[in-house]
Amino acid sequence: MPTQPSKSVSTFPNPHPDRDYTIRLVSEEFTSVCPKTGQPDFGTIEIEYVPDQACVEMKSLKLYLWSYRNEGVFYEDVTNRILNDLVSACHPRWMRVAGIFKIRGGIQNTVTATHGQRA
Amino acid sequence: MPTQPSKSVSTFPNPHPDRDYTIRLVSEEFTSVCPKTGQPDFGTIEIEYVPDQACVEMKSLKLYLWSYRNEGVFYEDVTNRILNDLVSACHPRWMRVAGIFKIRGGIQNTVTATHGQRA
Amino acid sequence: MPTQPSKSVSTFPNPHPDRDYTIRLVSEEFTSVCPKTGQPDFGTIEIEYVPDQACVEMKSLKLYLWSYRNEGVFYEDVTNRILNDLVSACHPRWMRVAGIFKIRGGIQNTVTATHGQRA
Amino acid sequence: MPTQPSKSVSTFPNPHPDRDYTIRLVSEEFTSVCPKTGQPDFGTIEIEYVPDQACVEMKSLKLYLWSYRNEGVFYEDVTNRILNDLVSACHPRWMRVAGIFKIRGGIQNTVTATHGQRA
Amino acid sequence: MPTQPSKSVSTFPNPHPDRDYTIRLVSEEFTSVCPKTGQPDFGTIEIEYVPDQACVEMKSLKLYLWSYRNEGVFYEDVTNRILNDLVSACHPRWMRVAGIFKIRGGIQNTVTATHGQRA
Amino acid sequence: MPTQPSKSVSTFPNPHPDRDYTIRLVSEEFTSVCPKTGQPDFGTIEIEYVPDQACVEMKSLKLYLWSYRNEGVFYEDVTNRILNDLVSACHPRWMRVAGIFKIRGGIQNTVTATHGQRA
Amino acid sequence: MPTQPSKSVSTFPNPHPDRDYTIRLVSEEFTSVCPKTGQPDFGTIEIEYVPDQACVEMKSLKLYLWSYRNEGVFYEDVTNRILNDLVSACHPRWMRVAGIFKIRGGIQNTVTATHGQRA
Amino acid sequence: MPTQPSKSVSTFPNPHPDRDYTIRLVSEEFTSVCPKTGQPDFGTIEIEYVPDQACVEMKSLKLYLWSYRNEGVFYEDVTNRILNDLVSACHPRWMRVAGIFKIRGGIQNTVTATHGQRA
Amino acid sequence: MPTQPSKSVSTFPNPHPDRDYTIRLVSEEFTSVCPKTGQPDFGTIEIEYVPDQACVEMKSLKLYLWSYRNEGVFYEDVTNRILNDLVSACHPRWMRVAGIFKIRGGIQNTVTATHGQRA
Amino acid sequence: MPTQPSKSVSTFPNPHPDRDYTIRLVSEEFTSVCPKTGQPDFGTIEIEYVPDQACVEMKSLKLYLWSYRNEGVFYEDVTNRILNDLVSACHPRWMRVAGIFKIRGGIQNTVTATHGQRA
Repeated sequence: MPTQPSKSVSTFPNPHPDRDYTIRLVSEEFTSVCPKTGQPDFGTIEIEYVPDQACVEMKSLKLYLWSYRNEGVFYEDVTNRILNDLVSACHPRWMRVAGIFKIRGGIQNTVTATHGQRA
Repeated sequence: MPTQPSKSVSTFPNPHPDRDYTIRLVSEEFTSVCPKTGQPDFGTIEIEYVPDQACVEMKSLKLYLWSYRNEGVFYEDVTNRILNDLVSACHPRWMRVAGIFKIRGGIQNTVTATHGQRA
Repeated sequence: MPTQPSKSVSTFPNPHPDRDYTIRLVSEEFTSVCPKTGQPDFGTIEIEYVPDQACVEMKSLKLYLWSYRNEGVFYEDVTNRILNDLVSACHPRWMRVAGIFKIRGGIQNTVTATHGQRA
Repeated sequence: MPTQPSKSVSTFPNPHPDRDYTIRLVSEEFTSVCPKTGQPDFGTIEIEYVPDQACVEMKSLKLYLWSYRNEGVFYEDVTNRILNDLVSACHPRWMRVAGIFKIRGGIQNTVTATHGQRA
Repeated sequence: MPTQPSKSVSTFPNPHPDRDYTIRLVSEEFTSVCPKTGQPDFGTIEIEYVPDQACVEMKSLKLYLWSYRNEGVFYEDVTNRILNDLVSACHPRWMRVAGIFKIRGGIQNTVTATHGQRA
Repeated sequence: MPTQPSKSVSTFPNPHPDRDYTIRLVSEEFTSVCPKTGQPDFGTIEIEYVPDQACVEMKSLKLYLWSYRNEGVFYEDVTNRILNDLVSACHPRWMRVAGIFKIRGGIQNTVTATHGQRA
Repeated sequence: MPTQPSKSVSTFPNPHPDRDYTIRLVSEEFTSVCPKTGQPDFGTIEIEYVPDQACVEMKSLKLYLWSYRNEGVFYEDVTNRILNDLVSACHPRWMRVAGIFKIRGGIQNTVTATHGQRA
Repeated sequence: MPTQPSKSVSTFPNPHPDRDYTIRLVSEEFTSVCPKTGQPDFGTIEIEYVPDQACVEMKSLKLYLWSYRNEGVFYEDVTNRILNDLVSACHPRWMRVAGIFKIRGGIQNTVTATHGQRA
Repeated sequence: MPTQPSKSVSTFPNPHPDRDYTIRLVSEEFTSVCPKTGQPDFGTIEIEYVPDQACVEMKSLKLYLWSYRNEGVFYEDVTNRILNDLVSACHPRWMRVAGIFKIRGGIQNTVTATHGQRA
Repeated sequence: MPTQPSKSVSTFPNPHPDRDYTIRLVSEEFTSVCPKTGQPDFGTIEIEYVPDQACVEMKSLKLYLWSYRNEGVFYEDVTNRILNDLVSACHPRWMRVAGIFKIRGGIQNTVTATHGQRA
């Protein structure tokens, strides 16, 4: 049975919730579709956060990023939506998501959105 | 009908105006003309900003940067003018523009101008 | 009307067929699907060739690479198939295709296939 | 008699306890076992601290890191446990431990945990 | 049921046996044990080969490299043994294996062994 | 009186014609116009040659490269034309010209053309 | 008539005096003479400043740096003198000069001096 | 008469004592002896300071670093001792010394000690 | 009992004498003394060889390189002497030794000597 | 008595004339004067040679390179003249000199001249 892309992000209990520490997850394997032209877009997604009670499960994150593969999304929107979805899933004390997208029309675009204040 | 260079910068509505987030746009394809010698100058333009209600449209930015191709401008001036024009177009909460120009007379020149205070 | 992925590769007449010269085309935006797991694979495709009567048209190449987006292919196979298809399309004097794929199971895989003898 | 892995971390007296200074220890030779799959994990461990009365003995640290070789531990947990064990061993004024783990499922994971406030 | 380390290397049929092409497999996750001291050794294994009728299966290679985790082997020996085992498994037209080992006693050691003549 | 772009390339007498030696000239400041879209293209031009009786004069080369600023030329064509023009100007024993152009449609294109046999 | 080295630094009116922005000028072509041995010294000079009413003219800066070619100066002194002279010439809101000198006696020396407070 | 290693560090009068500026001195040529094993250790010494009335003389610093060549010292101790000796010699407003030592037992050790508060 | 520097290089039997393969040993921890000035010199020693019946033992090599610590030797001479001594010790089928020495008088010196013909 | 620049290059007897080995000398500290404009030029000089009976003395080479400081020379000429002078001084079995000059008019120039055939 093949694994499926999914908008649902799983978590696991933070093994050290008493301490503010950071987790940084980087995937160079993000692709979505340009809403205007229907052509593929590519980028790197960097996530850094301070977990509260829950941590993002890595395999689940992979399936979540996969879920954008056939979706038409703008760079500014998708970066914020990834942040929103991950915040909803794990309620971190602080989180930042950066989308670093490949050159289009000679211009390279990086979007960085943050939730909460870093302690 | 070929696309044309243009001093007008288009925008689109910020999809997440409730959040302070940053957008970084980098073009290694800037060229203008030296006002003294009439010879071509070359550089990289880096733009970073926190959008308010509007975001800079990327194709429009490409046409805007193209508009300097036959214009005689000094490095210090053109970097500030790009900042002014982009601020007028999208009224960002904060914006910084850097012009990183190629070596002339053995000297490399980088000009960096900022609008507003970063939150 | 949106552009479509296509297995057909267009060419244009080599403007300098009297000379052996090389063209190198690199796309960091290749993705296909693992035939075993159904999960996405990612890689960079490097093409280098000496054209004979025809050159590969760049936009057409982009659509051709896009055609693998939903296809289940092994790394060893897809690299050779890209080589075969490009050779059929432009009949070059010499061509080499390299597929540089992202790490899977801790192992990075690069496949390099060549057609003909370099002059 | 071969040296053995050990959970016990030795220390030696800080030769300059009157001064806040930092010691940074980096090992690119960390391996443990994934608790889910039983397969080996690999990473780099970076430790930076301000010693109080005791410093971490380097050979002892090597044996301590070795002790994880056959242990099933999650990235988030093991980084915090290394921090806890080193804090217990040398009671530093400040300490930070980072675990930089190899790519799994296309995602690179770095965990960084800190004890105390840097002066 | 957890996957197990194994000295057996699986192969799959070369999809393009009519062509001499190269496959390069790189794992930064090799560890074995020093036969003298019993302490862990670490290195990177680079394999490059021209397949004949069979290709090395990547997951199988991962399990094969894992099989050295608790084995006492010298750098010069293990690199040659990996070459011998892979040659026995897939009978390539040409193969080269390099072991790039971490610094010991201030000295970095790289061993490179080759089977056959490159066409 | 401002300097002007020019298709004419000046030379000066080779001060050491008795010896085969190489001269390598690299300009990161090349721009032309796409013949299809009318939009600017950008690239780096690398020239390497063994002079015979004449050497390419550097200021003259700058004006020559400038002459493409408003010209619609394809990458494959312009690289060969630069080679032809420089060969006509200085009749070198050997010459190679490479055009390394900026990413378009996610694809980076490098064209390399050579005149004569390197001794 | 050849251009001459000069201790006088020319300026031009700041085109955007209403805004605090920075200009960074880097020359890798600085040479002076060691006052002790009379032998040549080499270095890179990095200047960064916030202009007030005047900007440093680039060609003039080149001639100014040239003026040290036959002068015997110590690293610590010359870096401060360049800062003093440029401050006198353009009265910036803030300026920093760094001299990054080549290795002498196995030691690399970098001197960094600042005028005023950065806004 | 050959130059000799020396624990005495010479200074010269700061030519610009009225200004807080920094001097950074880096030597990649430090060696001492391990007090436990008697074997050679190697490292890079980075010194950065704000001079008060006196500057460290570079040749004298070379001889001072040489004085550790046959001395048995621990990394944590020698870095602090270099700081202490240089502070005693030139009474800087602020000074930081870093010792970046070569890998031992798979672990790289960097010690950084600071005197005073940076203005 | 402390380990001692030694001009004698130990070997161990080549575990795969039937195959021509290469071993590359790199030490960044070489120091000797300048015969003219008596001052320390520093460098990196790179050794690459094809063993015949014997391989160079790594710990022994470390002690051998240590033996130059108090010896006055010129760069050109010491590199050849290391080659001669290692050839005498292990009688390789081919060997190359490179000494890469630190900058003196603004000049970086690399000496490379080879024994035998590479197969 | 200060050291002086000199066109004379000293040598010392090759300590290992029985072997073909290479010596590579790199100085990043070359400056001369443009014969047209009288302005300073800067570059790196790389020398690689196989000595016969004599080796180039390093301090002498420094003084020789210094001798171009006030001389008006073209890049193509000076590189060949350095080669000629060094060949005359030490009669090497093979020698190559490369001059890598700083960007002028947006163009970087590297000249490489060789004497004899490499064995």
